[in-house]
Amino acid sequence: MTTEELTARYAILAEGSFNPRDSKTANAVLRFIPEAAAALIDSTQAGKTAQQVIGYGGDTPIVSSFQETLKYSPNRLLIGIAPIGGELPDEWRIIVLDAIGEELDIVSGLHTFLSDDEEFKLAASANNVKIIDLRKPPTDLVVSEDRWRERSSYVLLTVGTDVAIGKMTTLIQLMDFLRASTLNSVFIATGQTGLLLTDKGVCVDAVVSDFIAGSIESEIMKVDNDFDLQLVEGQGSLFHQGYSGVTLGLIHGSMPDGLLICHEPSRKVNDYGTPLPTLTEAIDLHKAVMKPFREVDIIGVSLYTAELSEDKALTAIKEAEEETGLPADDPVRFGSAKLGNAILNTVGSEK
Amino acid sequence: MTTEELTARYAILAEGSFNPRDSKTANAVLRFIPEAAAALIDSTQAGKTAQQVIGYGGDTPIVSSFQETLKYSPNRLLIGIAPIGGELPDEWRIIVLDAIGEELDIVSGLHTFLSDDEEFKLAASANNVKIIDLRKPPTDLVVSEDRWRERSSYVLLTVGTDVAIGKMTTLIQLMDFLRASTLNSVFIATGQTGLLLTDKGVCVDAVVSDFIAGSIESEIMKVDNDFDLQLVEGQGSLFHQGYSGVTLGLIHGSMPDGLLICHEPSRKVNDYGTPLPTLTEAIDLHKAVMKPFREVDIIGVSLYTAELSEDKALTAIKEAEEETGLPADDPVRFGSAKLGNAILNTVGSEK
Repeated sequence: MTTEELTARYAILAEGSFNPRDSKTANAVLRFIPEAAAALIDSTQAGKTAQQVIGYGGDTPIVSSFQETLKYSPNRLLIGIAPIGGELPDEWRIIVLDAIGEELDIVSGLHTFLSDDEEFKLAASANNVKIIDLRKPPTDLVVSEDRWRERSSYVLLTVGTDVAIGKMTTLIQLMDFLRASTLNSVFIATGQTGLLLTDKGVCVDAVVSDFIAGSIESEIMKVDNDFDLQLVEGQGSLFHQGYSGVTLGLIHGSMPDGLLICHEPSRKVNDYGTPLPTLTEAIDLHKAVMKPFREVDIIGVSLYTAELSEDKALTAIKEAEEETGLPADDPVRFGSAKLGNAILNTVGSEK
Repeated sequence: MTTEELTARYAILAEGSFNPRDSKTANAVLRFIPEAAAALIDSTQAGKTAQQVIGYGGDTPIVSSFQETLKYSPNRLLIGIAPIGGELPDEWRIIVLDAIGEELDIVSGLHTFLSDDEEFKLAASANNVKIIDLRKPPTDLVVSEDRWRERSSYVLLTVGTDVAIGKMTTLIQLMDFLRASTLNSVFIATGQTGLLLTDKGVCVDAVVSDFIAGSIESEIMKVDNDFDLQLVEGQGSLFHQGYSGVTLGLIHGSMPDGLLICHEPSRKVNDYGTPLPTLTEAIDLHKAVMKPFREVDIIGVSLYTAELSEDKALTAIKEAEEETGLPADDPVRFGSAKLGNAILNTVGSEK
């Protein structure tokens, strides 16, 4: 995390939507950098704390208006949800303008870029504040140049049997464990939420599709000499017909040395009703798409077990290990040691 | 083809680049709608005909400047190449402005949209001409809604062991044969060159990557009730690390009933030096990525044999049939009957 991120204090706008499901961007701040959460705006929950509503985020207060956040000294306004279609709701425009008037920088992960809005642009310029569109792609996009062959760091990518199954969360959980090792590790974000947590990476789903592979290859090569291990956030799934293109572009653009497979044992179908694969099927297909290019280590399985009792979660972990012969764990629930050591053992033996 | 395309007369700009390889957009016009080619601009080849340089395109004259094209009465200027990076070379700006001054519409397949250029926009408005950016995506992009299950037409997609291996050409060759059958067929373009030849389709490599699958699904569903058979132009290759994301998005967005595999027997590596797969490996990987969703007919193999003697081409066709057990042919060289009948037999038996 850069100094800038560490000193960020977010007023988080999640009006009418703060809950475990819909406020994905807000929730990532509360889970991973709660010290950066000054206050949340959701008038339907005002008076509660984040902890009371979503089970984490501690004492972060929920208030009913932007004005009320000011006593918590925010320096940024974060658009905390991603509405369908990726556009800013009309009734939020005035809040953004108020925040700019109070000299807060604006941070947004919407597909519609707030920094291109004429009214916001003028206001930001008059108040000397920045509008940061997390999804805005770099202006110097290039197609892949197949540069992985000259790489010296080990690249680990998370992939999943479905979307929203822990590909980012797994890596963030593992970072602390890996930072305590002798390996010099870095997290490379590929989505708007991940980019709240680091300044390294690119929001691949917002890149023109000819440049998917090239965009992540560039980000990886930029820091190749500075790190031993790059943890690249996966996107989508080869088993999700809506976003599989992003997934394969990311796989071939990062050309990973190793994969961690993310899976939710109790989820049976994706959001289109298509059955999820078994872990064996998922491993086979990922090996198959990598085979024309290189061998890939399948390092382990990260399970999302929040919906299961602890007993059932432990059983699911044991079953995953028996099915795949790989280490499996839920790093959010049971800690990072097992999967972290699996990574260290694999990378250590390769270096 | 619409009336508008049939009456287009293109002055084709390919300065310094007119040859069998680099002027892909120019060459598609010369191969498929040569009656629409008024003249070519390439001062390094002035005085020759298209036929003399690339082996087709008939008497289309090559001249050294835009001014010289005027005696051939063009009504559009076509940017005939796709330079690396997809931007307009600086020295071509004046040619575009001259053409606008002469009231020619401008047609471009560049990634950089000429219709967004302030100077071109003003000039076009003053001269009442259109700037058509073939690659510009629709403004109403949606993510996939998994609508293939409600489809009534048969969707055939070309896929390849590499890029630039005949995925568009194969379908255009087959169209005449299929139009003579009782099946009502349509060609759906997915690249800027294909979009020169039809008004149906979308340039998928220029779509923001979250929308690859949704963009082609929309185009297919728009005409589903009007046709029995949709021939969808493939893009990229699962075996090309630069563009495989576009390829898989297109495969899962179109969710084809059948695939035609395109291959060049004499090509050993892709443009990154990665070995091309065998036909068996290509068929297996395409079946594998489709398996989570549906069964797919592998209809046949379209070979690109231009680099081989006729004897060697016939041997390559025989070997492809023996390896795969499927009908194989080079429809450009030996006609459309074999692959066309393979399609009719498959689609006929399904309808």
